[in-house]
Amino acid sequence: MENYRPKDGSNSPRFCGNRTFMRLTETKELENVNVAILGVPFDTGTTYRTGQRLGPSSIREASLLLRLYNHDLDVDIFKYCSAIDYGDVSVIPGDIHESYARMKNELVSLLEANVIPICLGGDHSISLGELRALKDTIGPVAMVHFDSHTDTWDTTMGLKYTHANPFVRAIEEGCILTDHSIQVGIRGPGVSKDDLSVSRNLGLEVITGSDLHNKGVQEVAQIIKNRVGDAPVFITFDIDFLDPAYAPGTGTPEIGGFTTWEAMQLLRESLIGLNCVAFDMVEVLPTYDSGEITAYAASGLIFEFLSIIAYNKKMELEEKA
Amino acid sequence: MENYRPKDGSNSPRFCGNRTFMRLTETKELENVNVAILGVPFDTGTTYRTGQRLGPSSIREASLLLRLYNHDLDVDIFKYCSAIDYGDVSVIPGDIHESYARMKNELVSLLEANVIPICLGGDHSISLGELRALKDTIGPVAMVHFDSHTDTWDTTMGLKYTHANPFVRAIEEGCILTDHSIQVGIRGPGVSKDDLSVSRNLGLEVITGSDLHNKGVQEVAQIIKNRVGDAPVFITFDIDFLDPAYAPGTGTPEIGGFTTWEAMQLLRESLIGLNCVAFDMVEVLPTYDSGEITAYAASGLIFEFLSIIAYNKKMELEEKA
Amino acid sequence: MENYRPKDGSNSPRFCGNRTFMRLTETKELENVNVAILGVPFDTGTTYRTGQRLGPSSIREASLLLRLYNHDLDVDIFKYCSAIDYGDVSVIPGDIHESYARMKNELVSLLEANVIPICLGGDHSISLGELRALKDTIGPVAMVHFDSHTDTWDTTMGLKYTHANPFVRAIEEGCILTDHSIQVGIRGPGVSKDDLSVSRNLGLEVITGSDLHNKGVQEVAQIIKNRVGDAPVFITFDIDFLDPAYAPGTGTPEIGGFTTWEAMQLLRESLIGLNCVAFDMVEVLPTYDSGEITAYAASGLIFEFLSIIAYNKKMELEEKA
Amino acid sequence: MENYRPKDGSNSPRFCGNRTFMRLTETKELENVNVAILGVPFDTGTTYRTGQRLGPSSIREASLLLRLYNHDLDVDIFKYCSAIDYGDVSVIPGDIHESYARMKNELVSLLEANVIPICLGGDHSISLGELRALKDTIGPVAMVHFDSHTDTWDTTMGLKYTHANPFVRAIEEGCILTDHSIQVGIRGPGVSKDDLSVSRNLGLEVITGSDLHNKGVQEVAQIIKNRVGDAPVFITFDIDFLDPAYAPGTGTPEIGGFTTWEAMQLLRESLIGLNCVAFDMVEVLPTYDSGEITAYAASGLIFEFLSIIAYNKKMELEEKA
Amino acid sequence: MENYRPKDGSNSPRFCGNRTFMRLTETKELENVNVAILGVPFDTGTTYRTGQRLGPSSIREASLLLRLYNHDLDVDIFKYCSAIDYGDVSVIPGDIHESYARMKNELVSLLEANVIPICLGGDHSISLGELRALKDTIGPVAMVHFDSHTDTWDTTMGLKYTHANPFVRAIEEGCILTDHSIQVGIRGPGVSKDDLSVSRNLGLEVITGSDLHNKGVQEVAQIIKNRVGDAPVFITFDIDFLDPAYAPGTGTPEIGGFTTWEAMQLLRESLIGLNCVAFDMVEVLPTYDSGEITAYAASGLIFEFLSIIAYNKKMELEEKA
Amino acid sequence: MENYRPKDGSNSPRFCGNRTFMRLTETKELENVNVAILGVPFDTGTTYRTGQRLGPSSIREASLLLRLYNHDLDVDIFKYCSAIDYGDVSVIPGDIHESYARMKNELVSLLEANVIPICLGGDHSISLGELRALKDTIGPVAMVHFDSHTDTWDTTMGLKYTHANPFVRAIEEGCILTDHSIQVGIRGPGVSKDDLSVSRNLGLEVITGSDLHNKGVQEVAQIIKNRVGDAPVFITFDIDFLDPAYAPGTGTPEIGGFTTWEAMQLLRESLIGLNCVAFDMVEVLPTYDSGEITAYAASGLIFEFLSIIAYNKKMELEEKA
Repeated sequence: MENYRPKDGSNSPRFCGNRTFMRLTETKELENVNVAILGVPFDTGTTYRTGQRLGPSSIREASLLLRLYNHDLDVDIFKYCSAIDYGDVSVIPGDIHESYARMKNELVSLLEANVIPICLGGDHSISLGELRALKDTIGPVAMVHFDSHTDTWDTTMGLKYTHANPFVRAIEEGCILTDHSIQVGIRGPGVSKDDLSVSRNLGLEVITGSDLHNKGVQEVAQIIKNRVGDAPVFITFDIDFLDPAYAPGTGTPEIGGFTTWEAMQLLRESLIGLNCVAFDMVEVLPTYDSGEITAYAASGLIFEFLSIIAYNKKMELEEKA
Repeated sequence: MENYRPKDGSNSPRFCGNRTFMRLTETKELENVNVAILGVPFDTGTTYRTGQRLGPSSIREASLLLRLYNHDLDVDIFKYCSAIDYGDVSVIPGDIHESYARMKNELVSLLEANVIPICLGGDHSISLGELRALKDTIGPVAMVHFDSHTDTWDTTMGLKYTHANPFVRAIEEGCILTDHSIQVGIRGPGVSKDDLSVSRNLGLEVITGSDLHNKGVQEVAQIIKNRVGDAPVFITFDIDFLDPAYAPGTGTPEIGGFTTWEAMQLLRESLIGLNCVAFDMVEVLPTYDSGEITAYAASGLIFEFLSIIAYNKKMELEEKA
Repeated sequence: MENYRPKDGSNSPRFCGNRTFMRLTETKELENVNVAILGVPFDTGTTYRTGQRLGPSSIREASLLLRLYNHDLDVDIFKYCSAIDYGDVSVIPGDIHESYARMKNELVSLLEANVIPICLGGDHSISLGELRALKDTIGPVAMVHFDSHTDTWDTTMGLKYTHANPFVRAIEEGCILTDHSIQVGIRGPGVSKDDLSVSRNLGLEVITGSDLHNKGVQEVAQIIKNRVGDAPVFITFDIDFLDPAYAPGTGTPEIGGFTTWEAMQLLRESLIGLNCVAFDMVEVLPTYDSGEITAYAASGLIFEFLSIIAYNKKMELEEKA
Repeated sequence: MENYRPKDGSNSPRFCGNRTFMRLTETKELENVNVAILGVPFDTGTTYRTGQRLGPSSIREASLLLRLYNHDLDVDIFKYCSAIDYGDVSVIPGDIHESYARMKNELVSLLEANVIPICLGGDHSISLGELRALKDTIGPVAMVHFDSHTDTWDTTMGLKYTHANPFVRAIEEGCILTDHSIQVGIRGPGVSKDDLSVSRNLGLEVITGSDLHNKGVQEVAQIIKNRVGDAPVFITFDIDFLDPAYAPGTGTPEIGGFTTWEAMQLLRESLIGLNCVAFDMVEVLPTYDSGEITAYAASGLIFEFLSIIAYNKKMELEEKA
Repeated sequence: MENYRPKDGSNSPRFCGNRTFMRLTETKELENVNVAILGVPFDTGTTYRTGQRLGPSSIREASLLLRLYNHDLDVDIFKYCSAIDYGDVSVIPGDIHESYARMKNELVSLLEANVIPICLGGDHSISLGELRALKDTIGPVAMVHFDSHTDTWDTTMGLKYTHANPFVRAIEEGCILTDHSIQVGIRGPGVSKDDLSVSRNLGLEVITGSDLHNKGVQEVAQIIKNRVGDAPVFITFDIDFLDPAYAPGTGTPEIGGFTTWEAMQLLRESLIGLNCVAFDMVEVLPTYDSGEITAYAASGLIFEFLSIIAYNKKMELEEKA
Repeated sequence: MENYRPKDGSNSPRFCGNRTFMRLTETKELENVNVAILGVPFDTGTTYRTGQRLGPSSIREASLLLRLYNHDLDVDIFKYCSAIDYGDVSVIPGDIHESYARMKNELVSLLEANVIPICLGGDHSISLGELRALKDTIGPVAMVHFDSHTDTWDTTMGLKYTHANPFVRAIEEGCILTDHSIQVGIRGPGVSKDDLSVSRNLGLEVITGSDLHNKGVQEVAQIIKNRVGDAPVFITFDIDFLDPAYAPGTGTPEIGGFTTWEAMQLLRESLIGLNCVAFDMVEVLPTYDSGEITAYAASGLIFEFLSIIAYNKKMELEEKA
């Protein structure tokens, strides 16, 4: 059985046809599938600007332009990585617990079939659904978390389940190997002096935005690699890691952020060689986007996720050979 | 004590200063207050486009341009109607029940002080909070409901509390005098043949959009008047009553709708002489607005609400005299 | 075999999943299919504002909100009309002749299977591709053409094949039963005194925008019905028939146009009872849309097309019974 | 010498080349010129939303689409009316008096050459500059003023020269034949009961928006004609005469307004046969426009101005013949 | 008396309630106030894109997201800095001299009460009003001026008072200690070779954009510190110091500019330890903003102003202890 | 005869008058002209987002803000460089061959008069028209090509003439001195491993985006200089060389790109001293722009082109002296 790969663009314009991610096949069949794109159009977890429910469709629209080869990594992605678009989770807006159950359900199906999911948010609350599915299949995982916020406040306006709390809940539920987990890019005005110590007290390593600006991409990439080690790792990328100039379409933008080039370099240099078991790209909010640049940033970084998965597989194969 | 009235614009430009409705005084004091504007920035009840949490601020911004005299009704509004901006209900996004409790709490305070509230939504789910407050103070009320949707479906994706169900819940809870209540402007593709009969079986009169186009404003205004009679009446106006050309900034637009002129005429001709006890203007969604026309339409129609309240008071005073 | 119908929205939000028209099944299988939606994302025929290649995706996005029952016509659409989304024609931007060949090819497949196509443009040049397919299967057809322009100029900047010339070419090629064909809504500044006489000399009846404003919808609907008679009829709807206030997202807007309510009424009153064999909705240009209202107008009018097809079938069945 | 006419579009696309009005020749030569388009990019007179300085360029951009023949009036415009684009007045933002001097200077040149100016605003304060030039050349003139505001308040925030006062100043300066002048479409919340009586006490006739809605276009057109009689007449059109749905891009939008079709009809039926000596189109504000519809409305109504000028000339010629 | 601090967000969503800066108390009382935010919605000084009158409201809207702790500086802002929102100056659009008088009047009240004002522009002409108030209370001050333009041209289109001339006027009026003042970030095409020498001849130090790119933030910060020394210093920040990618919403954007990270670093490294007596943030123009990123940049940099004030106070207190 | 220079802004605001580039004289006369701006509003070559036909007008609009002196290079541009706006080529949308003929025709006129053309695209297909004109006048030229794509694919969807193929065609036609030509900034997902080798096999040097990020501007500038040597050189700049944060308004944006500051530096450091014979700036697509920043980037970089031409002339003159 051949690998699933994007529809050939040589005889059909990219703006043509069904809007799946990169024009991949939409299917629920999981035979010979390595990676599945899964939309999670959920935004009930938001506490400020909202509308992330349209994130998956905007990322898919922008992904039409993506082609197949990563020249910087010199890898032919779909030769090593058979990928599909698994559609969207039928979340229920307004009902976070039912939605978590549905996310977990879909993701367990994928993980049990040894498929690496790449979830398209939706707000950051969805990561808890993903981590629960990971725990039930793979067990607790390391986490590499790119964001401007720690999302580890205990409650927000009295609520335990919003986009500001997924990781404290996940840690309480035993989903995360905190010793191997790290938050990168944290910045912006804080609620109180304790913001960072809350995360650190939970066992997470925290690299602030200033740290990353000061140490640079390569040093931080090495810190991430060291932190994760051999653990299976979940990568969660909040688009507000990027500066608002690069990603205006998001819910809680923080100035003083990063460029897409910095993000690409950081992903490549930190994740190559790791045992990546799941990814997400969250908080894309199209109604505040301009010129679709946030959607292009998100889809381009997911292209890097795919490239890294493929590259890691290629390395494995070459090592075996 | 003098009436509360908008800040004088003759020595200060309208775009200047605090964004209260019409530059009215923001206060929690209710002495000598007839009308209070109350924001309800809640959108967890939405099932399609979302972001109505920014409706109140966009309506207030547009209201800065409103001046004080209604020439068509020949009424000097704030001579007869002392009005304030009561601020926003601190709703909790994601928690509809807590939010309902808070809405009700604020509204009961207003209603007990004999203040007529004009709520700025927020999605249409907020009307249930308002109707509960009305029931607990005034008792069950008649309802005049301008909308393209009946919002009386029993459940939506399994949920009983969304912007599609407030009136069925309100009727179940005994908040509405169905015999004196009416829905006007209902149109758009239906879920099934039963959409309208559901409303009618609940005891409501339904005037469809086609009915209104065919019968015209004056005939329908008389139908409304007859239906309500002497009952205390709650007026709820979903901005999607207007055509999307007049109100693009809303969550579930339906073509074939009405102009602002038709809406103004219908409000004036139906509500003058009625015992109006509360109003709301819901479903303004600024991220889809263009040139702020939806916000101007909403604020302009609230100007008509105020004018009608003032006109009714003026008539009362003249009758007494 | 059951009718194809839109995905059930009662357990899955409408903003969720694959963007087919109304969330219909996307398939190339034509068994038990009455109607197929077919995107034609072609805009090389434009002479002014361009980008209509994104029309089909914007119409599909807006169509997600459409529900299933037409209350004004009292018809349960998919009970009488099994409908699918057939995807997009792989047009070749810049190559109108190759694109015409591909359009015709896809459409002939549909027409030979007795499927009524509803094409989503794309600029108006695509109608020639459709008419060629109709001629080769059904033979010459009557045409009801709603537009602000006649699109019958012989050449445009020396070109014979643009969105300004499809109908003169189609008539030359014998695709149109001119005696039974009519153009409705024609308005705007003309190239010369001859604009209308060119159409009339080709044998078409022309109802100008002024005529329609003055005579009204009902009289014009009857003129259309009389003109078409029993002939198989192709309906082509250029979104600029609507006023720019109702459809800003188009290539050559003309003021003094029509509302969506007028368009809905005109479609219903003219097309019910006719032998409609194909439809298109053209010139939607999303980059100039605001609040997606043009896309909603287009998808809402296509809902009327579907309703009319279903209504006609229902009438047939009832007559038979 | 041949008439000046727009650049031929048959061999050059309309979006190509210099952005003069309708692609007319830009020149300062006035031999054989009947009409001159003159931009007045001035907005220091605004009191609310601002940026009308870009009105002329947005109207010119939209005018590229205008073609040459008016089918409803059956007139070949440039056969009867030689027209040029005279460029912009070099106004000085922030200095209304210097700007008035420059406007007057340019306009006197045109009027002395028997050229009918059509000014593109700019905010409504510019009309005073125009009226001064008219007074100095032609003498006092009648005025037909389409607007939602009377613009006759004595002062605004203490200022005598803003877009809210041009006509009271012009009357004080003896520029207007008040007995032959009329304001049409006045609506929206008023500053006080006196708004309309101020205008009436100045000697102007006032037709409110409600009057126009109730009486209809034809009756009001006749009132205008009767009012003006044989006097030389200045026509000033504030784009906010239109409803915000039709003209969102303006400074002080008022709901309950008019469609472009109503405006076109009203212009044609009232102005044909009058002795029109100058026109303006003011208050177009592109930063609030959507899909450029306000600019299309403005340029389309100026097309009607041109058509009426041409039609009146044609009638004169035919009468002579 | 406790410090004024922003409304607590733990029980009320940030998008809720009155739009004061950071949801600070709006008051005219100055007891126990260290810092006051003051809007100056004035834009008559603009010479190109206009509409800066809406700058203050857009900055306030974006500021709602700001939380209270600056982690990079490790300072709890409102522990050291009691801050209020003092509302807007009632400027008079079109009348720069009256507006200057009103600005000065309000600012003198603040300065006499030992309150540090942070003005929200408005165009850059407002700095002259601020400098006049400073001179009359504190006396001449040093100035640190971040901008892409020197704003020291003698006249602009013959005008002496526009946003291009405030500093030459201020120097003439003796408001500025030129020996201690510096302009940073100057770039873009010049009027003539003399642009920079004009500033230098007035006694100002000028660091061009190229200088800053080449020397880097730290070296330039030291230059600023050295230049200012112990003088009381006014900080004026024109948002066009940032690159248009980071601040599209401004009147005269210049490419080749700076990131928000660079700006934050530069502010912190240059201003800590200085005797800052007043600040402004000018030229935010919301109608050209995208995704509100300019407003977020402005409010985030004002957060740095507040942090620096608090940090300086904290240092003072610690030194005393 | 004096040099042509932009209209003086000291007595006329920059937003005033005809939109030529920098308000240069529009003329077809070529006496004493060194540089001509020529619009090429052609977009039939696009394969993804389209509408580049409005690129020239948006670049001209943004250019109004450009002033005359380059401080970084210390050059008074129009002292050394007499420049005009030559208008637009009357391209024919949909007909690439006719359009090529017209481009070549206009450009040959300029080149034969020893005028350096700066073409405003339009999509990148236009470069072939320019190269053909260069070949026919000057002969084959070196090329410095700034872009994220190589545009050397043999065919695209079967087409030989699109914006993805101009340089392979130009090389086949002998227009390019490949030994002296170089592509800079190439990045983004590739069609296949061969993308870069195709260009290299054609004889071009390729500097990828990663190369440029890693080596830095100065090293790459030197590589360019060395590559070109003394050959006459054509500079083509695709705006997507910039990052989408800096240039959202383009057809095929690629993340991980460059800032305007990097571009300015790279242009200056590589092109000074070269024998530049022609320039273009392509792929500006205004309908996706935000805050006009793409248009400002494009016009600002063209300002650098002009500065470099002037600087080179100044150096020549000084050498001679």
